[in-house]
Amino acid sequence: MKRRSRISPDRAAELFALVLDRLREVGYEALSVEAVAARARMSKATIYRQWGGKPGLVIAAVRSLGPLDVDGIDTGDLRDDLKAYVAQYHLVAAMDHGMNRAVAQAVHRDPRLRAAVREAVVEPGLAALDAILARAVDRGEVAAGCPALPYVKYMLIGTLGSEIHLGEAVDLGFLHGYVDHVIAPALGLPPAR
Amino acid sequence: MKRRSRISPDRAAELFALVLDRLREVGYEALSVEAVAARARMSKATIYRQWGGKPGLVIAAVRSLGPLDVDGIDTGDLRDDLKAYVAQYHLVAAMDHGMNRAVAQAVHRDPRLRAAVREAVVEPGLAALDAILARAVDRGEVAAGCPALPYVKYMLIGTLGSEIHLGEAVDLGFLHGYVDHVIAPALGLPPAR
Repeated sequence: MKRRSRISPDRAAELFALVLDRLREVGYEALSVEAVAARARMSKATIYRQWGGKPGLVIAAVRSLGPLDVDGIDTGDLRDDLKAYVAQYHLVAAMDHGMNRAVAQAVHRDPRLRAAVREAVVEPGLAALDAILARAVDRGEVAAGCPALPYVKYMLIGTLGSEIHLGEAVDLGFLHGYVDHVIAPALGLPPAR
Repeated sequence: MKRRSRISPDRAAELFALVLDRLREVGYEALSVEAVAARARMSKATIYRQWGGKPGLVIAAVRSLGPLDVDGIDTGDLRDDLKAYVAQYHLVAAMDHGMNRAVAQAVHRDPRLRAAVREAVVEPGLAALDAILARAVDRGEVAAGCPALPYVKYMLIGTLGSEIHLGEAVDLGFLHGYVDHVIAPALGLPPAR
């Protein structure tokens, strides 16, 4: 029986650091899995077995920077949940502009990376948002038929994506104001305390 | 005195069609001004004199498809102005997905094209939106101190940019619903008639 060595968390962290360095320095396209494997003294086959290829490896490296912990948000209050939600994205967006830009560029050009980002980042983020909204409806904070409900994700994309679109830095107070002055009134929540 | 030939509108239209074809087929980066000039039987110097270079030429070609006529919007009613505004963007977005994607990709990679798009498309669009909102404040439709006013552009970016971010097609009824159910309540407008 062939023994398959598992990659230890320390080895994975070392590999991810190399991947993120290359991502910042040369961008996604020029990043070579082979070169990264050589520098980490791992076999390319091990990397492919573990992460499936370049898109999977890059996403694992990006996610290793810090979990986008939106699944755990459940304060019992919709306004507070939404503020916690935007704060999580803000943390990640503020963390590493160079890397975020490299990934945003690559996503446009590489359909496999786009699909991987969608599956690993976009979908879980939207599912967490749906869960937050569903709990608010269950608690009676928002009417089930509220016509603004299907639009909440678009409202959030506007602010969370604005840095890329308008080249503007957005601070957390601005994002919290967006929850108070845009999302809350559209959903019929009472004015901010 | 050296005579400088002006480019006739017909010749420009012919050139723009060639540029847009190449943009769809090979993308922005691989598009060669020299090759396009040769096919249009124009000198490269004439093109550079008229449009300054590749970013200017590509933007002129994209804009030739149809004006984003948001400057002219002034119905006397904020809700109607906003619906006309999103309808203009919707027209352009629906017109040519392949080309929009090619430009969106190129904008991420080429700072000169990014600056040119910002100057030729983004800034005039935002200025027209500011004018629409300022007139609504002047008419007393919206309070001058309404805390949602600075957020309107972000609300719009969310829907208008959603196609790129979520890979979803957005129809005009959905965009009009966004005005009715999100932007209007945030700005304190009375319910839709």
